[in-house]
This record gives sequence, structure tokens and C-alpha cells, in this order.
Amino acid sequence: MREQEIIDMLARLASGSSPELLAGIGDDCAVISKNDRLSWLVTMDTLIEEVHFDRKWHAAGLLGRKCVAVNISDIAAMGGTPVFVFLSLGLPAGYDPRWLEDFSQGLAAACKEFGCLLAGGDTVRSPGGIVITLTVLGEAASDQVVLRSGARSGDTLWVSGTLGNAAAGLELCRRGRADAPRLRGLVMAHLNPSPRLELGRRLAQAGLAHAMMDLSDGLATDLAHLCVQSGVGVRIDSASLPASSSLREAALLLGSDCLTWMVAGGEDYELAFAAAPDRRQAILTTAAEVGVPVTAVGIFDERPGVRLVRPDQAGIGKIEEDISYEGFDHFS
Amino acid sequence: MREQEIIDMLARLASGSSPELLAGIGDDCAVISKNDRLSWLVTMDTLIEEVHFDRKWHAAGLLGRKCVAVNISDIAAMGGTPVFVFLSLGLPAGYDPRWLEDFSQGLAAACKEFGCLLAGGDTVRSPGGIVITLTVLGEAASDQVVLRSGARSGDTLWVSGTLGNAAAGLELCRRGRADAPRLRGLVMAHLNPSPRLELGRRLAQAGLAHAMMDLSDGLATDLAHLCVQSGVGVRIDSASLPASSSLREAALLLGSDCLTWMVAGGEDYELAFAAAPDRRQAILTTAAEVGVPVTAVGIFDERPGVRLVRPDQAGIGKIEEDISYEGFDHFS
Repeated sequence: MREQEIIDMLARLASGSSPELLAGIGDDCAVISKNDRLSWLVTMDTLIEEVHFDRKWHAAGLLGRKCVAVNISDIAAMGGTPVFVFLSLGLPAGYDPRWLEDFSQGLAAACKEFGCLLAGGDTVRSPGGIVITLTVLGEAASDQVVLRSGARSGDTLWVSGTLGNAAAGLELCRRGRADAPRLRGLVMAHLNPSPRLELGRRLAQAGLAHAMMDLSDGLATDLAHLCVQSGVGVRIDSASLPASSSLREAALLLGSDCLTWMVAGGEDYELAFAAAPDRRQAILTTAAEVGVPVTAVGIFDERPGVRLVRPDQAGIGKIEEDISYEGFDHFS
Repeated sequence: MREQEIIDMLARLASGSSPELLAGIGDDCAVISKNDRLSWLVTMDTLIEEVHFDRKWHAAGLLGRKCVAVNISDIAAMGGTPVFVFLSLGLPAGYDPRWLEDFSQGLAAACKEFGCLLAGGDTVRSPGGIVITLTVLGEAASDQVVLRSGARSGDTLWVSGTLGNAAAGLELCRRGRADAPRLRGLVMAHLNPSPRLELGRRLAQAGLAHAMMDLSDGLATDLAHLCVQSGVGVRIDSASLPASSSLREAALLLGSDCLTWMVAGGEDYELAFAAAPDRRQAILTTAAEVGVPVTAVGIFDERPGVRLVRPDQAGIGKIEEDISYEGFDHFS
């Protein structure tokens, strides 16, 4: 069963409608009515040793911060502000107390950085490696929450920052090249991602984004979700995808492909959003004020799927191929 | 580091006060102000294969129900009503889809039984066994939430149901005696616990409980937390502890000790609560209406610690010993 089939089965069996549940399974966060004006945003993410992190290269303090950051990225993707954090921590019997202290310091510093408080959780013993689950409660004005379902045909697809850095950084770690000094930014994109909290909030408050999500499983997979939820498709121009210069350098060093990292690599935690084409200048101004670059990379249309337009092998013409769900599926 | 030391460290580093956070780390649930009248209750519990369950004897459907039940027991312990469930599910690469479907059916049936909806979560790959974390959001009238901190010297300690059944049931499973027909109730206490939702709610609404918690780590450990939070101690009469007749039968069969199961055995998910001695009749009436037996088993006093009074070895006199934290510590 693919990840989406598992989620669909659980949703079919155990979810349902409630006047308080403004958005449930299928978005970055659940949206729960708090009062006349505000909503709670609830998200939950698990990081498991050997799957999501390797202690050989992931320092405990950075991992503590990352656990918070990846959850807060989901809050950012709805235009919200994080408020409370809940931590469930599974530790092996012989864990190193110094590791735990460094992890906790990193987690605590991230809570302070993003303005939220640890409010509860659970500690358990793990027979295997370390298992970390966070639930984050955030808040947003109910009429400003940005869902995945609002993209319209004709909208522009925007992404923040540059793509593929985290995937390249992970590859550098795996292949023992994490110390290459000019590529340290890629490695840090994997070890220490920064959620686009302020950008998400500003876009939501200004009503600039019709739909928004964060990029955690890779552009091809994540956008496929957004397109399905919105009932649209999207056509992406490969030439417009924003790559850092160090990504190109890493591709040369490792003999890898930049485009694959940008399209199928996970964990960038950048924002992808749909906006009306005539809001281009307002979006660029907002992004400049926040200090985060944004790039228009595609156009939503009525044809289903995520389609990538790129030069053909001869380098003369162009080909368009469907890349929906080509990224990281946790179970395939 | 003991479990409590880990929690204390995390609380020291990353928690703090907020006007919205009415109770944070250290109670069964965090209590978060929802509006003028109501509060959200938030709890999180993780069940890990080989630590909390064994698929050899734990059917998937029952495990799905148990994951919900143990979280809802925390909501019950505050006098609340569960509303939304979030599930993070870690599955090994080669998991059995039928297992997942049965698990999901059990989880869904429990959500229906307890009146709550699955509203979100996460699915990840686990390199070891299955890892299940649930976050449950419940609701209660803010002025009726029962904390662990309200027990007073002179209060009576009550427990619901009978104690030690789940620990005995687990032991029967481990020793291949789970099929003994007259002891099936003990095995089911481990496999399929029932949170005391209605009892908790009725006690809270009637203002009968000064302090309350659910028994998950064993009477000695759980009550030690409640006593520390309330700034009191408690003296328990071993003769008054409620044991089922099958518990005595299992003790004979396995050569085990009933009292150890009742005092140090975890996962009973019964309620323990403190109440004024003059509310005895009201408590018995409420419990009878709900159909759950309750027993007065001790008296809170000003001397720190959880103390058990029991016959001495000669069977002539009585001894009093401090049993605080003698139950299950996840890391000792």
C-alpha cells in the first residue's frame, strides 16, 4: 500500500465531519475552530533514526531544532503562528544522557526562536533507535487560513528559496563529503532547515496565496497532492526552477543530477503556493520585505497532473512529462 | 536518567507560562483555554512494538482500539470528553496490509465508540517494529477540569474497578497461559482496556474529585506523581485494595504475588482520585449510576510519600513501607 492509500483508508474509516473541524486529513494541518475569529492549526510529524536522521552526522542539538522546524513548516504552510509543542520521545535503553541534553537544548532553543512553548508529551523506551514525534498547535485568523485546495486554473505557481539543497546535503553526508567547505550550506539545509514562517504568515495576511503547502516529500509528490486537492494540474518550466550555485557544484562533485534533486528531493521545507497572475508585484514586494526570494516556476491549468517541461535529449526541442508522485513515497 | 528527570529537564528548558496554558507538563493532559467557558485537553501517548505490545498475542484490531483507549483514559482523568484524534504511524517496510486494515478498523471503531474523529497525523517508515503515537484533543468546562494537584490532607483516596488485572494478563500472555478460560478477563484487561470516561466526567461535573489521574504506570508510581503535585502524602491499606477473584486465581497458577500486581503493575487505566471524606455517599451513588465499582483505599496526609500498610511476615502485626515510584519506570 502506498502512503496515500494508507491515509485514504484511515480517513475513510475514522474521520468525519464536525462543525468545529474546518479542515481535516489531507492538508498540512487540521484546522479546528477556536472562537469566532481564530482557528487552531494542528500538525504532527515523526522522525525515526535510520530513516529520517543518522546520528553519525546529525548533531543532537541540530536534530532537536529540526524536529521543531519541520512541524512549524506545516504551520507556516497554512499562514499560521505556532503556539504549543508536544513531544513524544522514544529512547533506547542505553541512550547517552549528553545526547539527550543537547537534543533538549536544541529543541528548547527552537521553541524560543519560533515563539512556542513545550506543553506536554510522553517518554517511552524504544527497542530500536530514537523515535521522535512532535505535535504542534498553531493559530491563525480563520478567514486567512490557506488550504491546499484553493489553486485555480491560470494561477501562477511560486516557490520560495532554492530547491534540492536538502537532498544534495543528505547525499553529501552519505558519501562522506559533508566537510567540503563551499557545500556546507547544502549540508545545513538537510541538518538544520528553516521554516518559512514569516513569509507564510505575510502571504496569508495579505490574501495573496490561493493555496499553499510546504515542500517536504519533494516538488513532484507534494504538488501532486495540492493539484488533486484543488482539482487542477500544473505545468512547470524546468528552466525556471531555482537552484543554488552550490547545488550545481555538488552535482558535478558527486556526478548527480540537479534537476532530480530539485524535483524529487525531499525536505526542502520551502513554501509552494498558487497566486493570481496579477499579484506578481505584490508577492515580490512581500518576499523582499521578509528577505526570502520567491520564484514563479509554473502555471496551473485544467489538465490533471504535475507536468515538467524540459529540453529534450538533443537539446533542440522541449518535452513535457508527467512527474506526479515521482518523489519520496515512504512505503514504495 | 529516570523518566521523571527527563521530563523535568525538558520542562525546565522548553516550557513556560502563557495566559492560554492553564496546565502544562506534569498532568494527564495539558489544559489550554478555548473560550470563556471551555478548555482543550491535549494528551499524547506512544506505543512501541516489543515494549508496549507483542503482535504474537495482540490482535491488530484490539491494538487499534487500545491506542485510542489509553489516550482517552488521560482525557477521562481530567473529567473531559474526547473530540479529535491525530495518529502518527510508523510501519516497517514489509508490513502486512491485512494487519494495517484490522488495526485501522479497530482504531476507527474506538473513535466511534468514544465519540471522536480522526483529524490528521503522519505515516512514516520504521526500520524496526511498529510505532504508534496518538495525540488526542478533548474538551471540558474550564471550571470542572480535575488536575493532579488538588488533593488535600484528610481526603480519601479512591480507585475505580479492580487493580493488577492488566499486569496479570500480560504475564499470562508471556507465559503462554492466555487461553485459560476463567482468566480471559485478565488477558483482555491487557489487550483491550476500557477508559473510565463516563465516571471521570460525572465526578468532575459533580465537583466530587479534588484531584484525579489514570493508573497507567502502576499505583505506586502514579500516586507518587499525584502526591508530589498536591504537596501531600498518602497511606494505603493493602487489605482494602480491590482485587478480582481471577487475579487471585492467576497468582496461584503462576506462583505470583497479587499485591505486587496491584501496586506495581501498570496499564490498569482505572481512575485514582482524591475526595473529601464527607462525599463518600455521593461518590458511591455516582459510581453505581455509571456502573463502575469504586473503592476507598487510603487517606491523604501531610507526610510525603506513598505508604502501604500491610501485615508483617508473621501475620501478627502491620508494617508501613514507602512504595513511591516502585512501579514501572520506562528507563530504569
